[in-house]
Amino acid sequence: MSDEFDVIVIGAGPAGENVAQRAVRGGLSAAVVEERLAGGECSYWACIPSKALLRPVELAADVSRVPGLEVGPIDTRAVLARRDEAVSRYDDAGQVGWIESVPATFVRGRGRLDGPRRVVVDTPDGERVLTARHAVVLATGSVASVPPVPGLREAEPWTSHEVTAASSVPDRLAVIGGGVVGCEMAQAMHGLGARQTTMLVRGGGLLERMEPFAGELLAESFAAAGIDVRPHTSAERVERPEPGGKVTVHLPEGPPIEADEVLVATGRRPATKGLGLESVGLPADRPVEVDDSLRATGVDGGWLYAVGDVNGRNLLTHMGKYQARACGDVIAARARGEADDLPGMRAVADGFGPPQVVFTDPQICSVGRTESAAREAGFRVRAVEYDLADVSGAYLLGDGYRGRAKAVVDEDRKVLLGVTFAGPGTAELLHSATVAVTGEVPLERLWHAVPSFPTVSEVWLRLLEAYGL
Amino acid sequence: MSDEFDVIVIGAGPAGENVAQRAVRGGLSAAVVEERLAGGECSYWACIPSKALLRPVELAADVSRVPGLEVGPIDTRAVLARRDEAVSRYDDAGQVGWIESVPATFVRGRGRLDGPRRVVVDTPDGERVLTARHAVVLATGSVASVPPVPGLREAEPWTSHEVTAASSVPDRLAVIGGGVVGCEMAQAMHGLGARQTTMLVRGGGLLERMEPFAGELLAESFAAAGIDVRPHTSAERVERPEPGGKVTVHLPEGPPIEADEVLVATGRRPATKGLGLESVGLPADRPVEVDDSLRATGVDGGWLYAVGDVNGRNLLTHMGKYQARACGDVIAARARGEADDLPGMRAVADGFGPPQVVFTDPQICSVGRTESAAREAGFRVRAVEYDLADVSGAYLLGDGYRGRAKAVVDEDRKVLLGVTFAGPGTAELLHSATVAVTGEVPLERLWHAVPSFPTVSEVWLRLLEAYGL
Repeated sequence: MSDEFDVIVIGAGPAGENVAQRAVRGGLSAAVVEERLAGGECSYWACIPSKALLRPVELAADVSRVPGLEVGPIDTRAVLARRDEAVSRYDDAGQVGWIESVPATFVRGRGRLDGPRRVVVDTPDGERVLTARHAVVLATGSVASVPPVPGLREAEPWTSHEVTAASSVPDRLAVIGGGVVGCEMAQAMHGLGARQTTMLVRGGGLLERMEPFAGELLAESFAAAGIDVRPHTSAERVERPEPGGKVTVHLPEGPPIEADEVLVATGRRPATKGLGLESVGLPADRPVEVDDSLRATGVDGGWLYAVGDVNGRNLLTHMGKYQARACGDVIAARARGEADDLPGMRAVADGFGPPQVVFTDPQICSVGRTESAAREAGFRVRAVEYDLADVSGAYLLGDGYRGRAKAVVDEDRKVLLGVTFAGPGTAELLHSATVAVTGEVPLERLWHAVPSFPTVSEVWLRLLEAYGL
Repeated sequence: MSDEFDVIVIGAGPAGENVAQRAVRGGLSAAVVEERLAGGECSYWACIPSKALLRPVELAADVSRVPGLEVGPIDTRAVLARRDEAVSRYDDAGQVGWIESVPATFVRGRGRLDGPRRVVVDTPDGERVLTARHAVVLATGSVASVPPVPGLREAEPWTSHEVTAASSVPDRLAVIGGGVVGCEMAQAMHGLGARQTTMLVRGGGLLERMEPFAGELLAESFAAAGIDVRPHTSAERVERPEPGGKVTVHLPEGPPIEADEVLVATGRRPATKGLGLESVGLPADRPVEVDDSLRATGVDGGWLYAVGDVNGRNLLTHMGKYQARACGDVIAARARGEADDLPGMRAVADGFGPPQVVFTDPQICSVGRTESAAREAGFRVRAVEYDLADVSGAYLLGDGYRGRAKAVVDEDRKVLLGVTFAGPGTAELLHSATVAVTGEVPLERLWHAVPSFPTVSEVWLRLLEAYGL
């Protein structure tokens, strides 16, 4: 087997896989290097298992709002078994097979840059040196950050990695962090049987990057479910005398929290450690800065690219894959000396504000800019809101439906800059907003996109009416 | 109270109510005439109660696909009670209050045209004559058709009206018709306890106006649920010796069907009977033809409008309301002598093919043209399909997920002409297609509308990839 390829991709998560696929479709040869499991975090320790854990919890909540239906207690063992199936029992044979079917060469081992176009892989059989004719693509993703709380690292806390792979549900769980991972996993573990779930949130509320009402609605729902959310609270010190044993989280004030497990969900940092960035003149331990064609800036010869979390643009699987499609296409075009600026070859949507669904009850969905982010960015903005409970299609989903929607309008261009939905049954509704925001569909035209009655999507009509159409 | 108004609306269904609201917002006075309940079929005998009946059936099906959750049998009595609540126990005080808050004048009674701008209302207190300064709007809706099968009318069959208002579920139900109403109500009654549900379908399959795969998937699901669908089968003769008693539906071949109730769902005709159309020179018993401003064609002086089912354009609540908004606005503009051709004053979306959700399991959702309709209309078309079961977000909704999506592309303009989704959890996804089709968002722009992972909406990416993007 030759050790020279047109493209070498380091990291076989969804982003890396997609770069290889698009580059090969464009006529190039590709190698994909992966140290752990092909398929990446998303497939085994993030999106897939978390949604598998959350689905029964979500459905049980839906059922609880519909008279005439009753669910029994959730059989946690069956849920964990389905999660195991969803993650292919942590076996990546299927994913490796997919990569080879592209066809691309799969290289198992830890890859690092070693100067221009050169990748050294520590394989189980020793070091192997790969050379790229056209491009090296970094797609190593990110790793969970653990904040410098005394005793925390020593306590070997769960991160998203461990909680999504849990083989049982802790009786008492302490969650540090109030972002997406913290909220989803607090919901999942609590719904699957944790008797006491406590969230320590540094800021004033949950999901603080979103519109404020989203976190407020979620906090109300968590309170009703018995999840103890503590805003403005940070862990001061953590004790875990015995590995895997009881954890004590000390707070600045009040009694400490005793728990059986502690989950750290305070953000992620790009997985650049040991990646050899310094060998090509880039700072180590920083996101790899790229332009809209995903090419690293500040590298001579323009052969280095980075897609997905490692470039720090938008830490979401679907955005990484999106970047990967553009990246694979642009690499192929440049290798062939063809036009490299077709519309699909720039990750322009990165700049719109990525779509995101938080699979809690209520679901929290947003795309584009929040009102405050839009104002900060200098747009002339008007925002409108609507109570989803007043939409017939939402009422029909269940009694006591609670939810809210907000649209942020660019007053100069009369297009949407951002949309947020918070409410059960809104996860699939989000894409309508993504099309509207990304497509920059004028409000005047959106007016003619009639929502089907009676669905939650009727909120679109209400938002446009609230705007004055 | 004066009997002269700027606008007189006959029919207080959602379409009529919306005309009045928009006209009043535009500075006009309005009267709304209604013979039965303000709120119309939709609120009491169609969308609202049918969705209330279907929601628990849908959820029970969802739960059956998720390991670790079990629902007990549906408590039909509780479901019917929630339906009663959803229809406000057939009391329209709330709707009348809403109309009066517009403010518009509510007139209870049967209204009919009696020459230009003149409406005669048979009220409980006798005849009342109303005169319109600017416009009369017909919004009388439609009524269920009963086909001329010997004995059928005499058997006093259920139509959508009676089945959605059922106070109990028949043990054995025969359904004549395989369209939206037939499918939804077969699903509802079967799910709520009918032991034997038989559908007689004249054509080869269910939902024949939609893409063929939609009806095929639904028929498979119905078969698995035990609903007996008989294609190419028409009732030949119906017998019901005692009113409300056992019904026998004779078929051209084979044994007759014995049932406790028979539901006729073979389409609707505009409610023009007794409406006085002939007094203004229009044919009675035909849809009232209108232009895109909803103004009746062929009436001198241009004072007559028709919105909703009665104009025969698109027999769907949301399309009637959409027309009503345009109609109310255009009447106000014309009354004021202002520009009457602003973008919101034409019901252009009527021509795109209306969005529609069928709330069965699987849900069937479509907007725009089917492939065959697009070809017939002369478009140069390419269609792509994708199996929803191969979308991660669909798999995560439940085991054995079955579904399919199709997009019809206008090859000349590279925009979508139509989209169909068939599968659980697609009802809210439809609006993304409605925005894309109605907004005529170019495919190359849709490519940048990234679906959030892992949702069913990822099918958008797959469809565009299948197209070659």
